[in-house]
Amino acid sequence: MTELVNDRFLRALLREPVDRTPLWMMRQAGRYLPEYRATRAEAGSFMGLCTNPELACEVTMQPLRRYAMDAAILFSDILTIPDAMGLGLYFTEGEGPKFERPLTSIADIKALEPNRAVSELRYVMDAVSLIRRELKGSVPLIGFSGSPWTLATYMIEGGSSKDFAKTKRMAFNEPEAMHMLLEKLAESVALYLTEQVKQGAQAVQIFDTWGGSLSHAAYREFSLRYMSEIIQRLPREADGRRVPVIVFTKGGGQWLEAIADCGADAVGLDWTTDIGDARRQIGDKVALQGNMDPAMLFASPERIKTEVASVLESFGAGSGHIFNLGHGITPGVNPDHVSAMVDAVIELSPQYHS
Amino acid sequence: MTELVNDRFLRALLREPVDRTPLWMMRQAGRYLPEYRATRAEAGSFMGLCTNPELACEVTMQPLRRYAMDAAILFSDILTIPDAMGLGLYFTEGEGPKFERPLTSIADIKALEPNRAVSELRYVMDAVSLIRRELKGSVPLIGFSGSPWTLATYMIEGGSSKDFAKTKRMAFNEPEAMHMLLEKLAESVALYLTEQVKQGAQAVQIFDTWGGSLSHAAYREFSLRYMSEIIQRLPREADGRRVPVIVFTKGGGQWLEAIADCGADAVGLDWTTDIGDARRQIGDKVALQGNMDPAMLFASPERIKTEVASVLESFGAGSGHIFNLGHGITPGVNPDHVSAMVDAVIELSPQYHS
Repeated sequence: MTELVNDRFLRALLREPVDRTPLWMMRQAGRYLPEYRATRAEAGSFMGLCTNPELACEVTMQPLRRYAMDAAILFSDILTIPDAMGLGLYFTEGEGPKFERPLTSIADIKALEPNRAVSELRYVMDAVSLIRRELKGSVPLIGFSGSPWTLATYMIEGGSSKDFAKTKRMAFNEPEAMHMLLEKLAESVALYLTEQVKQGAQAVQIFDTWGGSLSHAAYREFSLRYMSEIIQRLPREADGRRVPVIVFTKGGGQWLEAIADCGADAVGLDWTTDIGDARRQIGDKVALQGNMDPAMLFASPERIKTEVASVLESFGAGSGHIFNLGHGITPGVNPDHVSAMVDAVIELSPQYHS
Repeated sequence: MTELVNDRFLRALLREPVDRTPLWMMRQAGRYLPEYRATRAEAGSFMGLCTNPELACEVTMQPLRRYAMDAAILFSDILTIPDAMGLGLYFTEGEGPKFERPLTSIADIKALEPNRAVSELRYVMDAVSLIRRELKGSVPLIGFSGSPWTLATYMIEGGSSKDFAKTKRMAFNEPEAMHMLLEKLAESVALYLTEQVKQGAQAVQIFDTWGGSLSHAAYREFSLRYMSEIIQRLPREADGRRVPVIVFTKGGGQWLEAIADCGADAVGLDWTTDIGDARRQIGDKVALQGNMDPAMLFASPERIKTEVASVLESFGAGSGHIFNLGHGITPGVNPDHVSAMVDAVIELSPQYHS
């Protein structure tokens, strides 16, 4: 493979020295960019974009042309696995993802086939290898998946939910059924991420979007445990380098000590956590990724700069910090405000690395 | 005034000895009860119910007829103050509260009149004094208000919001305007709760539903600071007893040390916090209220009982715990499942008090 020109991101994930804090942005290939909206229109639909490797590659590259991001992230959706399991993923404007055929019985769970589902995700693997080629070693490529618990919530609720009543009813009343489902999902995610690594992903992130809806005990039983299982099954080296794993549980700030023990190299933080406090708690075990409030990008460029300064200062000196937002970028953001954030990281972070 | 027959709730809030852990439920007068739905139908609309003191009193009493709750809570809405300020509160089925005339300029903020708004909330005060009479000293009455930050989000967004983009834009870009608004709201809430205490409320709770959407620094600046101001302005005694204040920030589990210093007697916890951890952090300063996952009420009565046992055991021996859900009860819950929870608290909690 081509030598990696900029490996700042991979080095920081392993807490090795870097010249400045690396950065990327969750959902950096997205609706806030006019060029994304144009490609999305060309594709006809969101899933049309995800399933077309050339177009998925194109939107993955778009933010890199504008900004000095230190990593690319595969353009895809967190719900490709349940879709490949036959649940029928679709999107309705302004309502988020939905499934035509949500799980309604134990028989539905028993019928799920991890191997077969992942083998149908060829379009994702083609996108990974194409993007990796297109990157020409400029920056590393991040692969990703939703966490088993997060996938399960969508598969059972049939879409987003405020209170996850159906999913929790199953978890609390029929824990064996829920564990069977989560076990199958963990197996699927492990296969899926392994294949992404084989096709060229140099780091992977597990998005646990809804783990934060659980109590601490339920989080460990139904979400963290399965992310840990996945990490144990992943190949941890490719091209002679370690493939770091990032775990991001939105709303998981109270459980950082448990999360830091799950086997991941890095923990993503949402913006409600003080990154300095998090470093004092777990920074000797893992790297930390985050965590500016995405809504800060609605503020003025000057205000954005002072916020970047404050996040960098809170983490403090030394490696082990990957700058990011605390959640995906919001669609209505002005792309120039992202430049303000990127410029601030580039200007202000070298002082913390010497 | 009539002597209070059951003062377990007030005693636990002050960490004085009790015979068992007291309990009540956020939103205990609500849609999960068929008798509530009947009174609501009679009232014609949700605001019709709030503004009719007799009907508000009736629904406040309903859960006490079914369950051995140790407190009543005024039936009202958290958004009465902005409604009285002229923003035009209304409710659309399944979409939550909305305002006809949200704030759009600094002139709108300057025009707000705290004294005048609170003086228009006579219907709330009439409900408080009527409920207090009807309770006949059986259990104490809790008064409440939304927090300034929470009120501000609805007043600026015009309703619920996923990302609070408008509110945060103002907070980050025009902090002086935001502080002017929050100052006026703090003054209003202080007047409002003071009047509720005068009319008979024996404890008050400030609901900070959306404080958890902020970063730690922004939470202190825009939410906690104003709750602290309110508490300083409140009368802390009535009928020769202390009037305890409970502060509940949903999603505030990472900031408990700061919250415990705000002047409140008790801190409400949502279900993501381990109540034992919280007690070890701040239990020598304040009482703790909570914190079973409301979704647990969808589980079987047996499962509910083991969860109650686990919350009680996590808090451990001694006073200073008020059992509650970690958020308001969900509309679809079977009322018999609430009985299972109440019975479990009554059966299992005396062993922690001797």
